[in-house]
Amino acid sequence: MAQITSPLSGDNQKIAGDALQGALIDLLDLSLVGKQAHWNLIGRNFRSLHLQLDEIVALARTGADAVAERAVALGVNPDGRAATIARDSQVGHLEAGYIEDGKVVAVFTDILCAAVSRMRERIEATEEADPVTQDLLIEVTDGLEKQHWMIQAQR
Amino acid sequence: MAQITSPLSGDNQKIAGDALQGALIDLLDLSLVGKQAHWNLIGRNFRSLHLQLDEIVALARTGADAVAERAVALGVNPDGRAATIARDSQVGHLEAGYIEDGKVVAVFTDILCAAVSRMRERIEATEEADPVTQDLLIEVTDGLEKQHWMIQAQR
Amino acid sequence: MAQITSPLSGDNQKIAGDALQGALIDLLDLSLVGKQAHWNLIGRNFRSLHLQLDEIVALARTGADAVAERAVALGVNPDGRAATIARDSQVGHLEAGYIEDGKVVAVFTDILCAAVSRMRERIEATEEADPVTQDLLIEVTDGLEKQHWMIQAQR
Amino acid sequence: MAQITSPLSGDNQKIAGDALQGALIDLLDLSLVGKQAHWNLIGRNFRSLHLQLDEIVALARTGADAVAERAVALGVNPDGRAATIARDSQVGHLEAGYIEDGKVVAVFTDILCAAVSRMRERIEATEEADPVTQDLLIEVTDGLEKQHWMIQAQR
Amino acid sequence: MAQITSPLSGDNQKIAGDALQGALIDLLDLSLVGKQAHWNLIGRNFRSLHLQLDEIVALARTGADAVAERAVALGVNPDGRAATIARDSQVGHLEAGYIEDGKVVAVFTDILCAAVSRMRERIEATEEADPVTQDLLIEVTDGLEKQHWMIQAQR
Amino acid sequence: MAQITSPLSGDNQKIAGDALQGALIDLLDLSLVGKQAHWNLIGRNFRSLHLQLDEIVALARTGADAVAERAVALGVNPDGRAATIARDSQVGHLEAGYIEDGKVVAVFTDILCAAVSRMRERIEATEEADPVTQDLLIEVTDGLEKQHWMIQAQR
Amino acid sequence: MAQITSPLSGDNQKIAGDALQGALIDLLDLSLVGKQAHWNLIGRNFRSLHLQLDEIVALARTGADAVAERAVALGVNPDGRAATIARDSQVGHLEAGYIEDGKVVAVFTDILCAAVSRMRERIEATEEADPVTQDLLIEVTDGLEKQHWMIQAQR
Amino acid sequence: MAQITSPLSGDNQKIAGDALQGALIDLLDLSLVGKQAHWNLIGRNFRSLHLQLDEIVALARTGADAVAERAVALGVNPDGRAATIARDSQVGHLEAGYIEDGKVVAVFTDILCAAVSRMRERIEATEEADPVTQDLLIEVTDGLEKQHWMIQAQR
Amino acid sequence: MAQITSPLSGDNQKIAGDALQGALIDLLDLSLVGKQAHWNLIGRNFRSLHLQLDEIVALARTGADAVAERAVALGVNPDGRAATIARDSQVGHLEAGYIEDGKVVAVFTDILCAAVSRMRERIEATEEADPVTQDLLIEVTDGLEKQHWMIQAQR
Amino acid sequence: MAQITSPLSGDNQKIAGDALQGALIDLLDLSLVGKQAHWNLIGRNFRSLHLQLDEIVALARTGADAVAERAVALGVNPDGRAATIARDSQVGHLEAGYIEDGKVVAVFTDILCAAVSRMRERIEATEEADPVTQDLLIEVTDGLEKQHWMIQAQR
Amino acid sequence: MAQITSPLSGDNQKIAGDALQGALIDLLDLSLVGKQAHWNLIGRNFRSLHLQLDEIVALARTGADAVAERAVALGVNPDGRAATIARDSQVGHLEAGYIEDGKVVAVFTDILCAAVSRMRERIEATEEADPVTQDLLIEVTDGLEKQHWMIQAQR
Amino acid sequence: MAQITSPLSGDNQKIAGDALQGALIDLLDLSLVGKQAHWNLIGRNFRSLHLQLDEIVALARTGADAVAERAVALGVNPDGRAATIARDSQVGHLEAGYIEDGKVVAVFTDILCAAVSRMRERIEATEEADPVTQDLLIEVTDGLEKQHWMIQAQR
Repeated sequence: MAQITSPLSGDNQKIAGDALQGALIDLLDLSLVGKQAHWNLIGRNFRSLHLQLDEIVALARTGADAVAERAVALGVNPDGRAATIARDSQVGHLEAGYIEDGKVVAVFTDILCAAVSRMRERIEATEEADPVTQDLLIEVTDGLEKQHWMIQAQR
Repeated sequence: MAQITSPLSGDNQKIAGDALQGALIDLLDLSLVGKQAHWNLIGRNFRSLHLQLDEIVALARTGADAVAERAVALGVNPDGRAATIARDSQVGHLEAGYIEDGKVVAVFTDILCAAVSRMRERIEATEEADPVTQDLLIEVTDGLEKQHWMIQAQR
Repeated sequence: MAQITSPLSGDNQKIAGDALQGALIDLLDLSLVGKQAHWNLIGRNFRSLHLQLDEIVALARTGADAVAERAVALGVNPDGRAATIARDSQVGHLEAGYIEDGKVVAVFTDILCAAVSRMRERIEATEEADPVTQDLLIEVTDGLEKQHWMIQAQR
Repeated sequence: MAQITSPLSGDNQKIAGDALQGALIDLLDLSLVGKQAHWNLIGRNFRSLHLQLDEIVALARTGADAVAERAVALGVNPDGRAATIARDSQVGHLEAGYIEDGKVVAVFTDILCAAVSRMRERIEATEEADPVTQDLLIEVTDGLEKQHWMIQAQR
Repeated sequence: MAQITSPLSGDNQKIAGDALQGALIDLLDLSLVGKQAHWNLIGRNFRSLHLQLDEIVALARTGADAVAERAVALGVNPDGRAATIARDSQVGHLEAGYIEDGKVVAVFTDILCAAVSRMRERIEATEEADPVTQDLLIEVTDGLEKQHWMIQAQR
Repeated sequence: MAQITSPLSGDNQKIAGDALQGALIDLLDLSLVGKQAHWNLIGRNFRSLHLQLDEIVALARTGADAVAERAVALGVNPDGRAATIARDSQVGHLEAGYIEDGKVVAVFTDILCAAVSRMRERIEATEEADPVTQDLLIEVTDGLEKQHWMIQAQR
Repeated sequence: MAQITSPLSGDNQKIAGDALQGALIDLLDLSLVGKQAHWNLIGRNFRSLHLQLDEIVALARTGADAVAERAVALGVNPDGRAATIARDSQVGHLEAGYIEDGKVVAVFTDILCAAVSRMRERIEATEEADPVTQDLLIEVTDGLEKQHWMIQAQR
Repeated sequence: MAQITSPLSGDNQKIAGDALQGALIDLLDLSLVGKQAHWNLIGRNFRSLHLQLDEIVALARTGADAVAERAVALGVNPDGRAATIARDSQVGHLEAGYIEDGKVVAVFTDILCAAVSRMRERIEATEEADPVTQDLLIEVTDGLEKQHWMIQAQR
Repeated sequence: MAQITSPLSGDNQKIAGDALQGALIDLLDLSLVGKQAHWNLIGRNFRSLHLQLDEIVALARTGADAVAERAVALGVNPDGRAATIARDSQVGHLEAGYIEDGKVVAVFTDILCAAVSRMRERIEATEEADPVTQDLLIEVTDGLEKQHWMIQAQR
Repeated sequence: MAQITSPLSGDNQKIAGDALQGALIDLLDLSLVGKQAHWNLIGRNFRSLHLQLDEIVALARTGADAVAERAVALGVNPDGRAATIARDSQVGHLEAGYIEDGKVVAVFTDILCAAVSRMRERIEATEEADPVTQDLLIEVTDGLEKQHWMIQAQR
Repeated sequence: MAQITSPLSGDNQKIAGDALQGALIDLLDLSLVGKQAHWNLIGRNFRSLHLQLDEIVALARTGADAVAERAVALGVNPDGRAATIARDSQVGHLEAGYIEDGKVVAVFTDILCAAVSRMRERIEATEEADPVTQDLLIEVTDGLEKQHWMIQAQR
Repeated sequence: MAQITSPLSGDNQKIAGDALQGALIDLLDLSLVGKQAHWNLIGRNFRSLHLQLDEIVALARTGADAVAERAVALGVNPDGRAATIARDSQVGHLEAGYIEDGKVVAVFTDILCAAVSRMRERIEATEEADPVTQDLLIEVTDGLEKQHWMIQAQR
């Protein structure tokens, strides 16, 4: 079957591909837990958080699409299937059922903090390998750090 | 913790809740496999299918949000976490790696055909229990059947 | 030649297909006579009716497209060719040449009244056969009944 | 004086007309008490509730217009005058003067809960009499139940 | 309970508050009778009046919201509940049932003429008390006088 | 009954009127066969052709409205009723049922080629009679020739 | 002082310039009498004519700007000053004061009929001299003839 | 013939009517000389002035429409016919032919300065007679003074 | 150097100029402290206040631009430089560092209350000197009083 | 290889094809020198010319696309490759490096003047051969002559 | 009081925080002097510079918001109060009163040149400390350098 | 003649200038060959490729404008004249005449692959010299690599 040729050498393709696949899983799972909290949220700050969670989901979906399309443009197959997310995701767990507003703030502060930390490792890892990929990861991280601040500010 | 009171009696709430949770898993997984194919697609019909798959994803995401919000409005907690999708989804499997255009047409014809069939069971199941839920399921099914036709027509 | 497989059993497919084909002919002919009157209208209420007839035409065109696409999604071939319309349409006749505003109000009150009556038979016929089709026919009927009122109110 | 002829028989027209007139009074009064609370609201959650109440008012106004126009399309005169609302409305009472945010959440949870309950009776009542009217009532109820959840979630 | 402090002294607050509450009742009732006529209208000029009445309703709703928010900004609680409108409104009565186009023109010419007259008294009353409130009343009056002309011109 | 006076002398009015009526039938039938193919299309190029056929239909509808309104502005009654189209149209026949993509390309290449040819005769015929009508026919022909190229290029 | 050089020879520049200046005066005066009637109109058809007159004014203003800019592009100075319009205009006179709807229809039917007749002479005059100018005059005439029909149809 | 009844007493109606008619002539003539300069302008600052003159024309047209509609709403017939403008206008004269940019700045500084001065007299004259009219004149004056500054700043 | 001539006499120019310069400093400093709080805000109501503060900043910026342009249109030079704001502003002080939501509500209630009070003095001061300037100050005050209410309502 | 069949006979196709290819080269080169000047421009009128040059480029690009698509619709292959432009273009030369505003005005006055002259020959040449092509060339010429005036007016 | 935790270590947080605070002061003061010149500008190029200065102000405001929000996302409190700007800003001084167009070009060329120079130091300083911050500073610098060119080109 | 001063030292200015000029030629020629293929394309995938080529052209034009404006902002004159493109471009050659869809896919895969390779050298070359320029080149490369994938995927 035909394959997409890569503008990168094999090593750099591997490094960039791993960073992008890691980012993809983070962002897809963030979009799923973001929606899960958006639906099951309860508490006095319901409306503000309900809306903000949808902004986080939109950010995660846009970012996921960008990193996956970047991966395939480098000749690397992104994998965003449910089983892969369930198996590989490092995004923090969310209990089933209603979740109170204060809990959402605490959990998403942690989830975004950890995701940012993994993204920063990917920024470092791709600096030599592919500055174009690095630039995309910087942009995604910028958005996540902004949401991290705005969730955390509500504690 | 506070709970959302339901406009339905316990039995009807159970029937409608099951139908909506089932639809949620179908639609979330459809949005994930839709994106997976959107990214890894290859073949002469790449551009047409790449764009159509994004329409299917948009339909699935809008539908998933609607059924999940309907569930919580009935006092039932929707569960759209990755592990739940991976465990419960009946949506057909997609291999990792590149996927050829003809294969996409065949696979999504099957996926949509089966999803439509499960949706029609839910329409029947909710007729007595909750006509408001049934009306939403009818609308979602209408969209899926339209995509089913438009994918299948490309065989 | 390939065919579109139907989500309905043969009997139900037949019932839904007949209802949709009937609706298609009604709506296409309504769009044609609506334009005919839009162009040949004369009288003091020219501008109001000229504009309202275009709303009726837009409603009829949107409805025709929806019922035809629903038919093919059920594996039934819609037939909207001029000869078929000329042969099968039950929409009332319109004389050639100028048509006065009062005449337009009278004629379209009748045309819409009769079309609504046929649509309501189709709603009944499809209730068991296909609730998804029935829901579409209900929506189209709602629009036609609204126009029926707004034309009739001008008598 | 001219009258609008009805697509329904006398009995069904009566049933559908009563359901629509009842819905009209509910929705118009909801739009009035929604604005009353929107203006006189006070408390830490002022901004979120102030905005949400305007969404409820918008929903109620759109719904009121739809049910009233549906009534007249059936040849039934809708009555939405202030005296009629004041006399017939079953929507819960709102005290004059400032109203605190917690109170608004409690009162509107009750108001919406009761309105939904009356709407569901109307859905049942019109099932046989007029499926087109029923479909409109289902759509309105869907919106009210969503707002009921989103207000209640803030307790 | 907390209260909104007023930028006006007690006397001026009383004068401005009374003018705004009076305007609120006029505008809310105008929006209700406007819709009542919009729905029950009949006659050859149906479409033109049906549309113009909706412009009047939109004007009345926007104005009502502005005067009520201005009242509370002055520390005065606006009261726009159905019972208050029914009790206090000086807007002319509208019979139930169909209302012919000529009748609508006559009735609304009178309703708007009288409303303008009361608004002009309020403009005078607030000149000393609060020029900011006066400016809002002038703007509302300007809109009402324009509609008064455009309805009356159809006699 | 009143009639529209023409800016043209009788002979020129006749020439321009015939050209416009001919164009009207061509364009209305093109819009009907365009939709017929849009619905019943099947084959690998389904999506591209499905979308392009809708562009042709939009072009045909806009053109039909323009030529019909031009006719009546010249005091000539356009006739766009189904029976007239069925009787007078020279647009090529389309079989009922599914139609394959390659067939659509071939048939619409022929239909557009022949329509363009008739339009060019009308351009010539109206040059002396009415340059304003000629200019409209030139604009319509330009659009048809562009679609003719873009369909044909897919052979 | 600098001058704009013309793409036309002296004779053709003169012919085209005269045609454009004539059209300019017609269109500017049409925009003035259109507004005059828009403001002073009275009668049952007030709203329809009030709106249509504004469409005529918009058409006349757009056309006036186009012909004036075309004149200067040909090195001919357009003159659209009030005194010039008052002195040169051949547009029919309008009495001061209220003007009834039927009168407006009659007067504007005549005004547009005569304007169209002068425009057609200009189309003929410029055919040889400047086809670019002729094309603009054709477009303006097309718009005027359409309005002529739509006003006249209301008699 | 029917007349528009005025919300003002005879004396006040006369004062407001005169002020509005005066403003109407100023604004209509400003729109004509603005266009005249827009077309015949020449010089290095052509583009800036060409665009700014169109802003002045837009301001003048909007203002003219507002003051004329206000006049008729007061039962006073506005007169904006070419002959009336030519006879009554006090707006400064503009020579025919090309006009250099520096000249435009000088002439429009004077025209706007004088118009503002007349508008301020009208503001004073209407203060007692009709505060609603005065408010409109204030708004128009504000716009003219802004344009006066921005033209003058280019000297 | 050239200067902008004023439509006001020297005394009135001085009064209006002082009022506008005072308003300018109030509004510019409000825009700066509004952003300062928008950025450094912390607490459970973070999101609502973060968004509302941006509405206040937008209001202040729009108002500042309007009063400054009005000043120069009167021939008075507005001064909005940082040093001038720092020296002349009477807007309340904001501490550096994080600022809690409750503190923001308290501080901005005071800041807006005091600004409104100064604006009302300017409205009074300019009544005789320049009604056009007064009208602008009334409009700005209206906006500030609305924000004052909406901030204060959150206490 | 497949070819596009032409609606024109061989001779007319040749004439129209030559005119369109000539126009294509003119327009493409105009778009390139327009951008060259847009970037390298210097002088006091920088901003006005910088913006106007982009309008010229937009006009040239739109025109180039239209004439090239018209050529292929006639079965003639347009050639817009860089080497062809460099070889065939008659558009005046532009020196490398900064170019002063006065120089730009002079050069583009000449470039547009010459282009218009060539376009007018093409209009004449295609009159018999293809009125549809002629109409497109007239429209392009109209735009170029307008820009020619507006550049030249700045001398 | 709660604090925002930083994704950066203390040293890097200090470096990035200093760079962002420096950029904030530059951008806020640029927005203030940009408006000051926008208002007090005089000279033949008034309109072009008046508009361009508003583009610079918009750029500066957007940039200021972005760097301040980035600072707080890093746990550093931005300080944009008037006194801080007055004390710390290195942006060049602007005299009070009218400022001629040539002067504005000279002064803003210098202001932007110096600001760009400081921004480039910040880009260098943050390269190691925080690539996400550096990327934002690069984007802001890109915009400032573009404005620097476009102002300077007008000398 | 005046010159634009550079924020870069001479050496860095030279490096960045060369990279930008190289990118400019690549992008301009890509926009020309993209259009050439857009027009002369033939084959079953005509419509998909016709549309995608226009996306490539839009990307190339936007990129060309950005790199050219960046060059002049650095004091380097971009050269985008036809002769320079024809002389310096390294973009692959395209034969005249019809070009089949498969050929387009092959040729543009090669053209984009080679362009990306040259862009990556420029990214490397400018890293030290000017990070602002580098960031722009990264962004352009990202777009080209995405198009490279999407063309190549159709093989």
